[in-house]
Amino acid sequence: MTSRSTAATARTSSEVRAVARTQTLLKGSNGIGTVRRTVLPGGLRVVTETLPSVRSATFGIWAHVGSRDETPALNGATHYLEHLLFKGTKQRTALDISAAIDAVGGEMNAFTAKEYTCYYARVLDTDLPLAIDVVCDMLTGSLIEQADVDAERNVILEEIAMTEDDAGDCVHDLFAHTMLGDTPLGRPVLGTVDTINALDAGRIRRFYKKHYDPRHLVVAAAGNVDHNKVVRQVRAAFEKAGALKATDATPIAPRDGRRILRASGKVELIERKTEQAHVVLGMPGLARTDERRWALSVLNTALGGGMSSRLFQEVREKRGLAYTVYSYTSGFADCGLFGVYAGCRPSQVHDVLKICRDELDQVAAHGLSDEEIGRAIGQLSGSTVLGLEDTGALMNRIGKSELCWGEHMSVDDMLARIAAVTPDDVREVAREILGQRPSLSVIGPLKNRQAARLSEAVA
Amino acid sequence: MTSRSTAATARTSSEVRAVARTQTLLKGSNGIGTVRRTVLPGGLRVVTETLPSVRSATFGIWAHVGSRDETPALNGATHYLEHLLFKGTKQRTALDISAAIDAVGGEMNAFTAKEYTCYYARVLDTDLPLAIDVVCDMLTGSLIEQADVDAERNVILEEIAMTEDDAGDCVHDLFAHTMLGDTPLGRPVLGTVDTINALDAGRIRRFYKKHYDPRHLVVAAAGNVDHNKVVRQVRAAFEKAGALKATDATPIAPRDGRRILRASGKVELIERKTEQAHVVLGMPGLARTDERRWALSVLNTALGGGMSSRLFQEVREKRGLAYTVYSYTSGFADCGLFGVYAGCRPSQVHDVLKICRDELDQVAAHGLSDEEIGRAIGQLSGSTVLGLEDTGALMNRIGKSELCWGEHMSVDDMLARIAAVTPDDVREVAREILGQRPSLSVIGPLKNRQAARLSEAVA
Repeated sequence: MTSRSTAATARTSSEVRAVARTQTLLKGSNGIGTVRRTVLPGGLRVVTETLPSVRSATFGIWAHVGSRDETPALNGATHYLEHLLFKGTKQRTALDISAAIDAVGGEMNAFTAKEYTCYYARVLDTDLPLAIDVVCDMLTGSLIEQADVDAERNVILEEIAMTEDDAGDCVHDLFAHTMLGDTPLGRPVLGTVDTINALDAGRIRRFYKKHYDPRHLVVAAAGNVDHNKVVRQVRAAFEKAGALKATDATPIAPRDGRRILRASGKVELIERKTEQAHVVLGMPGLARTDERRWALSVLNTALGGGMSSRLFQEVREKRGLAYTVYSYTSGFADCGLFGVYAGCRPSQVHDVLKICRDELDQVAAHGLSDEEIGRAIGQLSGSTVLGLEDTGALMNRIGKSELCWGEHMSVDDMLARIAAVTPDDVREVAREILGQRPSLSVIGPLKNRQAARLSEAVA
Repeated sequence: MTSRSTAATARTSSEVRAVARTQTLLKGSNGIGTVRRTVLPGGLRVVTETLPSVRSATFGIWAHVGSRDETPALNGATHYLEHLLFKGTKQRTALDISAAIDAVGGEMNAFTAKEYTCYYARVLDTDLPLAIDVVCDMLTGSLIEQADVDAERNVILEEIAMTEDDAGDCVHDLFAHTMLGDTPLGRPVLGTVDTINALDAGRIRRFYKKHYDPRHLVVAAAGNVDHNKVVRQVRAAFEKAGALKATDATPIAPRDGRRILRASGKVELIERKTEQAHVVLGMPGLARTDERRWALSVLNTALGGGMSSRLFQEVREKRGLAYTVYSYTSGFADCGLFGVYAGCRPSQVHDVLKICRDELDQVAAHGLSDEEIGRAIGQLSGSTVLGLEDTGALMNRIGKSELCWGEHMSVDDMLARIAAVTPDDVREVAREILGQRPSLSVIGPLKNRQAARLSEAVA
């Protein structure tokens, strides 16, 4: 209590700096929240979006580390570490951590991607201080003991086995391998049975120390939250852990660079005795910051983004050849992928691939109709607004924006960028992206002649 | 325009009746919506929950028909019909239906369960009239033409193949079979390859006529909606389709009855070459309306409802034997099931089953600690409130309440019922439910000696 009242009356120089570093980034209105950022001494960024009309809050911490930061021997370490942060700190056992959030009906989880890791808890607004306390403790005070590493190794091997059984999920990992090969971006986030078996507490602890420095972290909170209160609580939690000592540290910048992907015409097949075969037919896409991404979003939506999209209509609606078919984009800091996924019985694979390839070629050559583009713009606009009602989605948006772009865009600006896409923009990006020779990844029960015919789709 | 102004000034007698049949069921406050119901002539019920603080609305229509209403030969017809309602009406092609909702960025889908079917669209509030128009048209004007039945047959066969590949999903169908046998409730919602191949347009059309009468339907809308406007639009859409002619019809009552399940000590195994084995160990549970369901919810939450639950702690946290382990309840009108699910590599199956069985026996004999019960009550309360922020969840709640219970409970009443559960209530329901001899369903690569040992878990 004493130190708190001292802090309120006599600010230290670092606190003055911290206060001076608070900015309002976006002004809220009409159901959209106000976004603010404070950079704490130690280089820790705190961004919040305040939306007083809701009763919940989502609190998350993003670490600027993903599987692309792993050496081959460390493959899977980022995700392993994510699991270990739930296993206990100096203050809390694993049960203490989960019981604290369960007891208030909150939802706590984490996810590891190729370029970042995020830990979050969604709770009633009145339970936000608890969520901040628990998640900050996990991030700053993890013990990473050998016994926990060993117990959790089995859980991760189970997770790998579970993913192996889900061929429709696995085929996306295979596609990354097809396009990017045995590189950090091409390897699976989960690692492999061999790398997971080889990791020990010492190596994971070093990885933790290196990548969970406050300069590499972004704290994000959204919902019925008060920016200044969140900043004070986060600061107290990090200071208690001794994590904000380097008072002049500045946050690290988003990743950058440009990388040209050269894969084209490749075919990779993993034979597996499933009922369905799963295919991804695709090509290099666009990096996350590429200005053409708005046109590519419109293209992707019209081609394979909904039930009225070309691919859904041609493959499922007219011919009943698949239950699931869609296209997607994935953007990294320096490159990206564009892919078409379908799952169907093996007897249909060649028909499905032919239709998908024909549509890609058609759109590359002729673009899309004005009607298709208008509908896709409407679809993207509506789903953007609908997608931001949940405080978890808001937290994701501001956290990822801060970490990956270093800047924030208002919903109105996003809608304006989408609305500004012209048929010519779409035609140009279609020619450039879809005009490339595709590659193909397949998991399913295809043998001999059926397997040999796969190369037709990438000719 | 003329007819609208006429209706406003000179009400017909059926309209007077309809207006007289509007009731406010729950009063809103503090972020909770007001729930109203109108019964239209023709017996069509319209329930809405108004929450003016959101920008979206979800509109759904529930049909009081599920796979338990099918004869053996019709198995899968309810779900087949659900697909066919997206294939076109007198007014709209399949593309018109999907394009209308896609163009505004809405989300449209449907689901078929054992006791009901639901069609819904989630849209921005300004697009609600469009959603009402499209969904009402699908429900009242479906063509169900033979060509569409044939094209969609392949899509459903793909869906069955996809589900077959998902052993963690399939094992729940197997558990229903283990417990309920070859009965309407025991058969799969999707049907089988044989029944789907045998169905034709004529039989499905008769099924549609029989089960989609307005007396069997509940219309539900939630979000930023105006009850009277929704009622007027729904009425206009149904009258246009000639669907509200039986002006004195009354809605059908919820299903009822009591059914005693006798399965105990059964083991069913489907051998499949997957990486993981999937098990459900369970027993008869409680019907949906059973007063002991609140105590069973608390029990279920403490036993296997979160990361701090007994099963998660014993199976995953302490021993790393599975990635996924949880317990669940499913309640039907006349009976219910209680189950424990786990997915793990085959070498761990017997250890996992032994731990799960021991915990079931322990809790049946000794109940739970006060701490566990307190935490479970907190968890259920918090997650109940957090689960109602999304207009889709609100629409589900009021639609299902009207259809399955015929009454609506306020969130405060629900929280009060949860909070009132005592350790004695939990002990009693644990003794009754968990004290029964369990049965077991398994899908995975288990053979010979491993398979033979499965009966140990149900001894």
